[in-house]
Amino acid sequence: MDENTLTIILVEPQLGQNIGAVARAMLNFGLTDLRLVNPRDGWPNPEAIPPSAGADKILNNARVYSSTLAAIKDLNLLFATSSRIPDMIKSIYAPKAALEYLTSVAQQGQKVGVLFGGERCGLRKEDISLCESLIKIPTKNDFHSLNLAHAVALVSYEWFTQISSFPSQVFRTGRTCLATREDLGNLFTHLEGELDRTGFLRHQKKRANMVRNIRNIFQRASLTEQEVRTLRGIIRSLAREPEDVRKTKVM
Amino acid sequence: MDENTLTIILVEPQLGQNIGAVARAMLNFGLTDLRLVNPRDGWPNPEAIPPSAGADKILNNARVYSSTLAAIKDLNLLFATSSRIPDMIKSIYAPKAALEYLTSVAQQGQKVGVLFGGERCGLRKEDISLCESLIKIPTKNDFHSLNLAHAVALVSYEWFTQISSFPSQVFRTGRTCLATREDLGNLFTHLEGELDRTGFLRHQKKRANMVRNIRNIFQRASLTEQEVRTLRGIIRSLAREPEDVRKTKVM
Repeated sequence: MDENTLTIILVEPQLGQNIGAVARAMLNFGLTDLRLVNPRDGWPNPEAIPPSAGADKILNNARVYSSTLAAIKDLNLLFATSSRIPDMIKSIYAPKAALEYLTSVAQQGQKVGVLFGGERCGLRKEDISLCESLIKIPTKNDFHSLNLAHAVALVSYEWFTQISSFPSQVFRTGRTCLATREDLGNLFTHLEGELDRTGFLRHQKKRANMVRNIRNIFQRASLTEQEVRTLRGIIRSLAREPEDVRKTKVM
Repeated sequence: MDENTLTIILVEPQLGQNIGAVARAMLNFGLTDLRLVNPRDGWPNPEAIPPSAGADKILNNARVYSSTLAAIKDLNLLFATSSRIPDMIKSIYAPKAALEYLTSVAQQGQKVGVLFGGERCGLRKEDISLCESLIKIPTKNDFHSLNLAHAVALVSYEWFTQISSFPSQVFRTGRTCLATREDLGNLFTHLEGELDRTGFLRHQKKRANMVRNIRNIFQRASLTEQEVRTLRGIIRSLAREPEDVRKTKVM
């Protein structure tokens, strides 16, 4: 087990299928410590295997407990999830803020976990009172009951997003690289020269503005060197008169 | 259909069960426009109904298309999802950043959507080339294949988080309210008086520090008025000698 991890505890889960889907979502986001409190259909449960989609090790290592208190006793910080806000005096966190808090405590070497209730009615108030705070996944008012595995997936995703620090946006150019400003300048000169020749830019008053707008189209496309070559080939091909084509073929 | 919404397009989904779970996750997060491109087992599919958990209207209104191009033609901005990054020149967004972009365009009254591939191998490159950018849900390297409905749930959750602007943290006190600073001051005076009496605070050099630490315990608990009354009752009860109890009973 990783040192910095989030423990997922399912209290009285009903469907083996959901437990399997929970295992898959956990492993997608790098979590491995699954604990089950009184699963309705016993454990192990063969129905959990297909939806785990290969996350067998999570299922095989899942520990089963006869009480919530027994399942959580080594944890230093525990949050509960609930789709409805119980009539209790509690801090209620959005998932992202909750996982920021939980990861910050885990990164100090402390054990953290999140408690999820069963499919039918979620966590009991007694279980929530064992937790420091609540996580409320924001949902549309009139349809707030999330699938158990979806709830675990969202919490696990927010955990992994916190600890993995993937960039918000990457521009992938693969084996090529972005065109230099000189390549782009040559493309613009080529295109605008042809457009002057064909009369597209004949209105001198509008010319500067039209040129800017056309350049912006290609700027937004973040062209690579190869793509600039392709576009110049396209311009050459379009600018060629059909007679030229015939002449080329003859030559 | 809401004006500002996100369209979910599933390209060649295989399992009716997953389509049902997608519908449930969409409705949880306020989305209603589901489109299916060549679902493997035809449509409607009775296997989609139980996992939709009451999101029937999404299933009943789902539209079926025979090509991706036909399914997306009214959309102004379209992102693709992929668990693997294809060898293409594309911008790749984390889910949160992607949905920030998509919601900002939707809020200008334009139609936006996200394309999801089938269970077996995700989107084909031809479908990805119909999209402006990619969404990559960050996953653990060696287990990157998400369940289709989980992927839709995550994207829908990020959409709803963007447009609903729920607060990161709320402290819920229900019908009561937080204790006033005077209530807390009286609690501290009461507790410290009893602890002086019983000798717990007898080391004068340490007293000030101990008092600060004890006060901080109760400050962190964000006590309500009623809870301060409860704690004062607990102090009175603990401070009472067993003989006093007997005397009280007799009286």
